[in-house]
Parts: sequence; C-alpha cells; structure tokens
Amino acid sequence: MKFDGLLMIPGPVHLHERIIRAMNRQMIGHRGKEFGEIMEYCVERLKELFGTRGDVYIISGSGTAGLEAAIASFSKVRRITCVDNGKFGDRLGRIASRYTETDVVRFEWGQPVDLEVVERSLAEGSEALAFVHNETSTAMLNPAKELSRIAKKYNALVIMDGITSVGGDEVRMDEWGIDVAIVGSQKCIGAPPGLAAVAVNDRAWEFYSERCPFYLDLAAYKKKLPDMQTPYTPALPLFFALEEALRMIEEEGLENRIRRHRLLSKAVREWAIEAGLQLFPQPDELSNYSNTVTAIRMPDGITDKELRGTLQREYGIAISGGQEHLKGKIFRIGNMGNVSKRHVIATLAAVQDVLMRYNACKPALHAAIEILKEL
Amino acid sequence: MKFDGLLMIPGPVHLHERIIRAMNRQMIGHRGKEFGEIMEYCVERLKELFGTRGDVYIISGSGTAGLEAAIASFSKVRRITCVDNGKFGDRLGRIASRYTETDVVRFEWGQPVDLEVVERSLAEGSEALAFVHNETSTAMLNPAKELSRIAKKYNALVIMDGITSVGGDEVRMDEWGIDVAIVGSQKCIGAPPGLAAVAVNDRAWEFYSERCPFYLDLAAYKKKLPDMQTPYTPALPLFFALEEALRMIEEEGLENRIRRHRLLSKAVREWAIEAGLQLFPQPDELSNYSNTVTAIRMPDGITDKELRGTLQREYGIAISGGQEHLKGKIFRIGNMGNVSKRHVIATLAAVQDVLMRYNACKPALHAAIEILKEL
Repeated sequence: MKFDGLLMIPGPVHLHERIIRAMNRQMIGHRGKEFGEIMEYCVERLKELFGTRGDVYIISGSGTAGLEAAIASFSKVRRITCVDNGKFGDRLGRIASRYTETDVVRFEWGQPVDLEVVERSLAEGSEALAFVHNETSTAMLNPAKELSRIAKKYNALVIMDGITSVGGDEVRMDEWGIDVAIVGSQKCIGAPPGLAAVAVNDRAWEFYSERCPFYLDLAAYKKKLPDMQTPYTPALPLFFALEEALRMIEEEGLENRIRRHRLLSKAVREWAIEAGLQLFPQPDELSNYSNTVTAIRMPDGITDKELRGTLQREYGIAISGGQEHLKGKIFRIGNMGNVSKRHVIATLAAVQDVLMRYNACKPALHAAIEILKEL
Repeated sequence: MKFDGLLMIPGPVHLHERIIRAMNRQMIGHRGKEFGEIMEYCVERLKELFGTRGDVYIISGSGTAGLEAAIASFSKVRRITCVDNGKFGDRLGRIASRYTETDVVRFEWGQPVDLEVVERSLAEGSEALAFVHNETSTAMLNPAKELSRIAKKYNALVIMDGITSVGGDEVRMDEWGIDVAIVGSQKCIGAPPGLAAVAVNDRAWEFYSERCPFYLDLAAYKKKLPDMQTPYTPALPLFFALEEALRMIEEEGLENRIRRHRLLSKAVREWAIEAGLQLFPQPDELSNYSNTVTAIRMPDGITDKELRGTLQREYGIAISGGQEHLKGKIFRIGNMGNVSKRHVIATLAAVQDVLMRYNACKPALHAAIEILKEL
C-alpha cells in the first residue's frame, strides 16, 4: 500500500488536521467585517511571535516575497551589508543588490559568522545590515542579538530573516533592536505555504524608498492596516489556515512551543551523535545549532538517493537533502510547526533502519527517547 | 438565522464545493513528482484558456503580482503606453512608471478607448502597450484584438491584463498578437485567490530586463518550468484548488463555459434594462459590455449602504459597489467562475426586492429568466 505522507522537511510542514480543516470553507468578501476580524487576530498574534509592538503586514506570497518587501521598501541606504553563511544568506545579497550597493560578507556554509568581519563592513559605510536568524540550509542559528548590537553602533537599519525561527524559537525584535523581521507561514507557525509576514518598527520608515516594487511596497500595506485590510486581494484560504495555526499557538503557549521545538531538535541531534553520525554545522560560542532543523553529514557507504528514496518509498517519510554544493553531502530533518515526539521518533527509526542496512550508523533511538521523555 | 454567504462580486468568487474539497488534504513536498504533475496539468490547461502555445508561469501572489511580474520583467523599452479607462487601467500605469517612462492614455471611466489616441501615443515612441481586456471597475470589455493590431504597426510589445476575462471569455493570445497576458485564480477560473498566471511568447524575451523584482523575475520561473517547479515555495493548497478548478473547466468545455458567462451577464443586463435601470459603461462599436461582470447606475432614492447592506443582511448575498470616484454611484454583479443560473436569478430577485422597497425599479425577473432558459 501507499502510505500517507509525513513531511519532515524544513517547510512546507506537515499540517495539523485542524489547520487543514480551517480551509474547508466558502470564500468571503475580502473588504468585509469577517475578514477584518481574521486579519486583526493574525496581526496581534504575530506581534507576540516577533516580540514587537510595531506593525505587522501580511503579504500573499512566499517568504522570499516578504524578504524582498522588507529589503526593497527600506532601501534608502547608501549601502547594505548582507551576512551570508548559507543559501538564504546568499539570497539576501541577491535581493538587496537589485536595490542598493550591497556588501556581501561571506563565510563558509555551516561556519559561524565572524562578528569582527561584519563590523568592518558596517564601518566602511553601510547604513543597513541584513542577516538570516535560522539558516535552514545548514541548520545553524546565527547570533541575532549580537549582530543587531553591532549594527546599532553604526546606526544601521537591522533586517532579520526570521522565516524559520519566528513561532518556533525565541525572537525578541524590540528587545534585540531588530527594526524589520520576516516570517513565512509554512515553517514554525505550522500553516500552509503562501503567506509572509513582515514586522516593522517606526524607525524603519526613515529608510523608506519609493523605488520598490508596487506589489511589495510596504507603504501600501501600512495604509490599509488601520482598516485591517490588504492592498491587494488576499489569499483567503491561507488566512483561514493562518488564523487557526495561530490559535493553536495561543493554546499551546509560545514558551511551551519554543521548549518543544528545542527538545525535538535536541533529540535528533543526540540520536545522530549516539548513532555515530556527524552534525554538519559548527557553531561557536555565540551561534548555535538550529532548534527547528537538523543537518547531518551523509555517512560513507550510502547515497542521498538511497537514503531519501528508500525512506519515501518504504515509510512515506520525506526529509530534505542538501542544497547547492551541499547536495548529496548532508541530509536535513525539520521539526517545525506542530510536529510531535511521535513524528520525530518515527522519522529517526526509519532513517536509522535505512542507514543500518548500509552499515552507516549504530542503533541510537534510546538517546532520542531519553530527551523526548521531557515532553 | 444567519445565511450561508453567496459571493456575487467580481472576484474572489464563490467556490464550487469540489474546489473547496480539493484543499482538504495534507501538504506535499514542492520539489517532488506529485507537485510536478499538478503543475504540468495546470500549465497545459492554462495555455488553452490563454489561447497560446507559449509558456505559462504560475506565481504565488495576487493578480497584481502577476501584472507587475509581466510589466517589470519585460520593461527593456524606451517608453510604454498604458491605456486607462478604469481602475485597473490606472493600476497598469502606476506599476509601469516604476520601471520605465510611461505614457498613460486616459479616457473617462466607463467610456470606450479611442484607438486614434492610443495610436498617437505609440507613434510618439512607445515600444510597449499595456491594456486591460475586461475592466472590472466599469464592466467594460476593451477591444483587445484592435489594440494589439495597432501596437504591432509599431512593433510594440503587447501586454494584456486578462485577469477577469481568461477562463470566462474569449481570449486568443497567439491569434490576436498578444505577447504577454495575465490571469488571476479567483476570477473566471473559479479557484480561490492567491495565484496569478502569466502567459509569455518567445518574442517577449527580447524585452527582458534584469531590473525587475527578484520575486517577480519571470526568468527565474522560466528556468524552473522544464522541471515543473516554481523558483520559490508555491502556495500548495491553492495549486490543489487550481488543478480541480481547471479539471472542471475541462469537463465543461471552454466554449460552453464562455457561452455560459455570456448568457449569465446578458440575463443581468436584460433584467436591468427591463427594470428601468441604467447600465454604467457606454461601449462603442469596437468595445462591449463585460461578459463576466455588470455595472449598473445606482438609481435615485436608495443609497449604496441601503442596497448592499440589506442584501447582505437579509439574503446573505454580497455584490460590489463602485470603486474610487464611482463609490455610491454604481453597483456591480459578478458572474465569474462556476456561477449557475440559480445563483444569478436569486441575486436579481433579491436586488429587485430591495430596490422596489425604495421605488427604485420595476419587476423584471421575467427578462432574465427568458435569457437563462438558453442555459
């Protein structure tokens, strides 16, 4: 038989059935009272997830649309420094260079950012800093607070890609001094893909540029926010799902949710180490392993196709491979959104089963179970 | 009791229950085989709707995102002429002016375009022409074939906003010489809002400009098309719904569907005339009344709030008012997507009921029923 699929990739995530059901309804007018109530609830809840008292704008589009809206709308800067230690850091630079002079500060993928190198770039005349909080391609958590602190020394605008951290890990925009941050619906929030939210404080508007795309011009979203509307027709089913996903977060409690994400990823890491595998990222004292996705080096004796193909075929479980030059060299297990310990243990058992057929790991489920007991 | 809502606005449209149900499922990997199959089916079917053998790119975003992708990606032109005889014509000019010199040729909203005036603008050195096929704000159908023919005399690129015509009215891109056209998911196709499709012929790429937004850069979509993937995470539930909506169009047959849209809008118009109301647009011999939405002048003795508020409260039916300076002056009834004669006759009966309380129209349902018999 063909199994129901289980998505354990770092987004789009497996949906809780309540969130699927929330889309099972008729359309409504997008200028009416009911939509306004949905929008208001989503905006208020997202503020808590971002840790901000600023505005939150919801865009119908992928996380990349949200990133570009943030970077382009606030591109009245002589120069921007973009931190690149993974695929999504690289993307920041590619977007920014369409709007202003861009200095991409590169580090090897999976290696920590060197704050001194970032500071040097800022000191050379950057008026903005953009970085990825949780770098999904390498499963590394970059030091958001410290990066922001350095940027503030130069009065630079701080833009943070929080696409895969907000809603699953600690984000405190206001406290950390982040001016603009972005999240995607299909990651830790646990909703389907297709919406991005951008949180913006008042200071960011000093950097507003009209030289931004019409569709991604955050001034248009700001103008419509008091009426709890969007400037262009919103993707209604995705708003229905987002509302339900945010209700589930409210019920769970943000602190509990972050604790769950941390324990689930810790279980994956402890299993990997005990199984004799190597974690891919090499965090230093300021950075950390991601709490929402884990990247593991592909062991000798098995190929990406053998591992992921067999998992998919025999277990119906999807995990991710590496991106770009990491293709075939790593595999990644996501634990974003409404993933339970049942999902994680089943995934680890399946991965272990396949790896052991190739003598590529030792049995180590007990290490994961030990951690998961705390949930 | 509170009624189930019936959306009779010109999009987002009321969904057929099959299309709602299509979203009632778990997420899948967006780089996998199943998604590729969905994408391939959607692309092939959309080609028929556009009347093209060119490429079709599907963007997660509203119709406006599709418009901007088209205009910005093909903006390597010295100047563009934008035809404005309604709100969406106006929008074309606002988008285009972010990318190149723009000459907006303005006509009063609801009045036909004057081809000589358009030609004069082209002759003055425009290398592209953009216009709206079906102008939803005024319910006027602009003469696409003739506009395209004039543009070709000057070798200009032709970009057509087909957001509210494709899938419900006749569109023959290749035959008419349209290089680029755009459709929205939530209009005549009958799917939920949140996707836009852009059809592009080979010639358009001569006008490709890298100075376009990253998210809306059609070159990235073109690169991923052979693999039947999208460059950024697609809004999966909306693709599931789009696939089902396109299957319903295939089952109905495009010719039948266009005939149905034409008869439904004709029924609304005949009712309005017989009821003593005035149609808003004033087409000439080249243009026409829209076949997908009808705009009617608000009669004396009743306000927009009284009409639409009562309809919503007592019947649960939503129709649209006027936009911008037409607010309160017109009301609009959409018949896009999977609207049946039952929906139309119920809407007209309800509108007539409310108008008659204010002595604002005569009974005229028989005129609509006479037309609807043909369906």
